[in-house]
Amino acid sequence: MTRNPPQKVSEHPQIPPKPPPSMASMAILFTPHMTHITPRPLTLRRGRPVSCGLIEPDGGRLVDLVVPGPLRDAKRREAASIPARVRLSRIDLEWVHVLSEGWASPLSGFMRETEFLQTLHFNSLRVADGSGSVVNMSVPIVLSIDDSQRQAVGGSDRVVLVGGSDDEPVAVLSNIEIYKHNKEERIARTWGTTAPGLPYVEETIAKAGHWLIGGDLEVIEPIKYNDGLDQYRLSPAQLREEFTHRNADAVFAFQLRNPVHNGHALLMTDTRRRLLEMGYKNPILLLHPLGGYTKADDVPLSWRMKQHEKVLEDGVLNPETTVVAIFPSPMHYAGPTEVQWHAKARINAGANFYIVGRDPAGMSHPVEKRDLYDADHGKKVLAMAPGLQKLNILPFKVAAYDKTQRKMAFFDPSRPQDFLFISGTKMRTLAKNRENPPDGFMCPGGWKVLVDYYDSLDKLEKDKKLRETVPA
Amino acid sequence: MTRNPPQKVSEHPQIPPKPPPSMASMAILFTPHMTHITPRPLTLRRGRPVSCGLIEPDGGRLVDLVVPGPLRDAKRREAASIPARVRLSRIDLEWVHVLSEGWASPLSGFMRETEFLQTLHFNSLRVADGSGSVVNMSVPIVLSIDDSQRQAVGGSDRVVLVGGSDDEPVAVLSNIEIYKHNKEERIARTWGTTAPGLPYVEETIAKAGHWLIGGDLEVIEPIKYNDGLDQYRLSPAQLREEFTHRNADAVFAFQLRNPVHNGHALLMTDTRRRLLEMGYKNPILLLHPLGGYTKADDVPLSWRMKQHEKVLEDGVLNPETTVVAIFPSPMHYAGPTEVQWHAKARINAGANFYIVGRDPAGMSHPVEKRDLYDADHGKKVLAMAPGLQKLNILPFKVAAYDKTQRKMAFFDPSRPQDFLFISGTKMRTLAKNRENPPDGFMCPGGWKVLVDYYDSLDKLEKDKKLRETVPA
Repeated sequence: MTRNPPQKVSEHPQIPPKPPPSMASMAILFTPHMTHITPRPLTLRRGRPVSCGLIEPDGGRLVDLVVPGPLRDAKRREAASIPARVRLSRIDLEWVHVLSEGWASPLSGFMRETEFLQTLHFNSLRVADGSGSVVNMSVPIVLSIDDSQRQAVGGSDRVVLVGGSDDEPVAVLSNIEIYKHNKEERIARTWGTTAPGLPYVEETIAKAGHWLIGGDLEVIEPIKYNDGLDQYRLSPAQLREEFTHRNADAVFAFQLRNPVHNGHALLMTDTRRRLLEMGYKNPILLLHPLGGYTKADDVPLSWRMKQHEKVLEDGVLNPETTVVAIFPSPMHYAGPTEVQWHAKARINAGANFYIVGRDPAGMSHPVEKRDLYDADHGKKVLAMAPGLQKLNILPFKVAAYDKTQRKMAFFDPSRPQDFLFISGTKMRTLAKNRENPPDGFMCPGGWKVLVDYYDSLDKLEKDKKLRETVPA
Repeated sequence: MTRNPPQKVSEHPQIPPKPPPSMASMAILFTPHMTHITPRPLTLRRGRPVSCGLIEPDGGRLVDLVVPGPLRDAKRREAASIPARVRLSRIDLEWVHVLSEGWASPLSGFMRETEFLQTLHFNSLRVADGSGSVVNMSVPIVLSIDDSQRQAVGGSDRVVLVGGSDDEPVAVLSNIEIYKHNKEERIARTWGTTAPGLPYVEETIAKAGHWLIGGDLEVIEPIKYNDGLDQYRLSPAQLREEFTHRNADAVFAFQLRNPVHNGHALLMTDTRRRLLEMGYKNPILLLHPLGGYTKADDVPLSWRMKQHEKVLEDGVLNPETTVVAIFPSPMHYAGPTEVQWHAKARINAGANFYIVGRDPAGMSHPVEKRDLYDADHGKKVLAMAPGLQKLNILPFKVAAYDKTQRKMAFFDPSRPQDFLFISGTKMRTLAKNRENPPDGFMCPGGWKVLVDYYDSLDKLEKDKKLRETVPA
C-alpha cells in the first residue's frame, strides 16, 4: 500500500460529465465539490460528519462506535462494573470491528429484531429520519446467546462483550433487546437454502444459541489483530481521508477473496481508462480483499496480502492510483444476498463505483452437484437492490487467456478457440503441483507467493504425519 | 352480500382529521376528493384510471388484463393460431384471475426474472417510471413449464394458455421470457424453510417444471368458476365502484380463511367505531374471504360463504356498512411474507385500512412441533414493508370468551381467569362432535353451517367406507 501526501484541491473542479447509460446502470450522485482537508488524526470523533466530495455514507454520516481516547478509562471502569458478560467468538469480534468503524452505517450496534426482520425480508432498513428512505442491509449482523447467558443477563439493560484469550472487555452493548433466534428461517432467507454444509452456518450459526441480543455498541478501543496486517486495516473514515488526499474524483472498489491474476488487473486498468474517458480526472482503485472469516480451502489472508503486494511491486497495477486495504467483514458465501453487503459497505468507505463479477460471493451447492447460485443473479440483484441506487454498478467483463497474444485479454466471442479459461480450481491445482500457468496469466512474483503457500501446506502436512508416525 | 344503489356524493366533503398516531402506524394518504360516478358497466376498459377518492392503486392505475368484449373474437382467433400451448393447473388459473383483475397491479402478467428476483430478495418491485418508488410484491406470481414444454415453445415470443376440462384458450402470454426455476431457492426465500410438507409447495411447486415463463398477459374472457359464487367475486374495479356508490370515506379490509365468530365481529365493529371517532363519516368494511387454493383441513370456500351469509343475516355485522366479496388468490401459508400480499392486494381494491391478526397466514411447522412463524412477525413485517407505507395497519386486538359477560370481548389482562380462548382447532373439534360452543361465541345460524359441513364430511366418509366394503 502506498499513501501520497495530501494535495491542494481546486475549489472549482470540473464537473464530470454524466456517464453514458451503458457504463452506469444507475444515476451518479457523485458530488464534485471537493475541499482541502487538513491532515488530522485518524481516529474520528463520534458522529463527526465526514466532509469532502465523496459519495455520502448511508444514513448521511459515518457511524463511529469507538470510544474517544480520553473517555476510554472511564468506559473500562464502567465495563468492569457490569455483571452481565457475553463472550465474543472470533467472528463476533470481526462484526464488532465492522460495526465500530461504520462499514454498516447507519447501524449503531448488533441488530435488534426490527432490523433483523427488515434485513431478512427486505434486504434494507428504513432510515429513522421519517423521510421513508432506505439503506441497503442484506446480511444479518447479530449476536447470539444461549439460554444460560440469557438468564445471566436477567433484567439488565446492558452487557459487556469480552473477547480474546483473556476475556478482556471489548465493548459495552446497551439498551439491549433479546429476541428469538430462529436459525432455520435466518438461514433459509439469507442463503436461499437450508442444505447442510454452508461454511458460515457450520462455523457460527449451527452451534449458536437460540437468542439474539441487539443494542447500541460502544467499543472501548479500536479492534487490532496484531498479525502484521493491521496497517492495511483502514477504516471507512481513513479510506475517505486517503481518497481525499489523493484528490480522487471517482473511487471504484474491487472486492476479492482470491489471488489477483492479470485478468483482474486488466479489468481494473480498463475500468480506470473508461472512467477517464467519461471525464473523471483521477479515478482511484480501492483493491479491497476481504479479511474476516473465509472457508478452509480459500487462500488465507496473510498469503493473499503478500500476493497483492507483489502485484503492485511488479507494476501490474499502478500504486499511484491504487489503494490496497483490508475489508474486515467475515464471508457468508451467500451470493446475491451477500454481494449487496459488499457493495453497501464500500459506499460507506467512499466508493461510488463497484465492480461486480460472475457469481459474486458464490460457491458450489453444499449437497447438489451445481453452483449454489445462478452466476448472473448477483449482478442482477445488485442492480435492483434497495438503497444502492446511488452506487454505479460495473459488471465484470469476461477476461480469459488469449493464446494468440499470450496474455489475459477480454474474451472475444468471434474467436472462442483462441481463449483459455483458467478457473480458480485450475489455478490452485497448478500452484499445488508447482506447475506454471501460461506466461502472462499472473505476474511471476505473485505466482511464487501462491506456490510458497501450497508448499507451506505440504510442509505442515508432512510434519503432522511425521509427528503421528513417531511413537510418543 | 348486499349492494346499495349509488348515492350522490357531495363535491366538498369534510376532510377527515389525521388519525392519532396510536391508531395509524403510517401516514394516511387518503385523498378526500370524491366525485359522483355515474353507474357504468362493471368491465372496465384496459388502463382506464379508476377515479374517486379511494386510495390510489399501486403504480397509479389499476391493471385490467381482460380483453375488451368487441376484441375477444379476434383474440380467440389469434390464440388459435399460436402453436405453443401451456396448460394451466387450477392454481395457475387462479393466478391468471388475480393478475387479470389487477389485484397485483402494476404487474401485467406472470413475472419475468427481474420481477421474480426482486420479489424473492426485496418483497417489492421498482416502478418503471424512473421515480425510484417501489410497490410491495412479496409472493412470486409465476408460471412453471417443464423441459418438453420449453422445447415446444422454441423461439416463439408468445404462447397460448389453455385451461379447464376441454383445454380451451384462456389467455395469450406475449413477449415471453423463460428462465430457470430454482425451486429450493424460491421455497427457502418465500417460506423461510425448506421442510417437506408445506401445503402450497406440495400442491404446486414440488411437481412443477424447472423453468418459469413470464410475459404480458391478455385474458380472453373474465375468469368464471360457475360454482354459484361468482357473484361474490368482485374485481378491484368493482369493489372500488361499490365503495364509491356507498360513499365510503374509509375502507377497512378483513382477510380471512376461517368461519367468522363473534370475536372477529367484535373487532370489525370496534374498528368501525374507532374510525368514526377519528372523524371518518362512513367507514365501510370489506369482509374478504380468500377464495383460491386452501389446504385440505381448512373449511372449503362454499361452506365459509354460507357461514358468512348467516353472520350478516343474523345481524352480527351490519349489511349497510359491510361488503362481502371473495379474494380470488390461492393461499401460500407463508406467514409474514404472504400477509404483505394480502394487504397489498386490498390497496388495489380500494382499502386504506388493513386489520392484521396474530400469526397471519401462519400454520404449524410441517415437521417440528411449533408454529412455523413467530406470531408477532406478521404484523411487525407488515408495518415495515416497502410499498405499504400508504396503508394503515390496524393490529388485531385479542378477543376471547368472557365467561362473566357470556360473550366475546376484548381480553382484559387484569382478570385473565374470566376469559376462555377457543382456538380454531377447538372450534373445529366442537363442530365435528356436534357440540355447542359457549353461548355468544358464534351466531347460531353460522354455527349450524359449520356443523352441517362436518356432517357432510362424515356422510362422505361413511359412503366411501360403504363402497369399499361392498364387493365389486
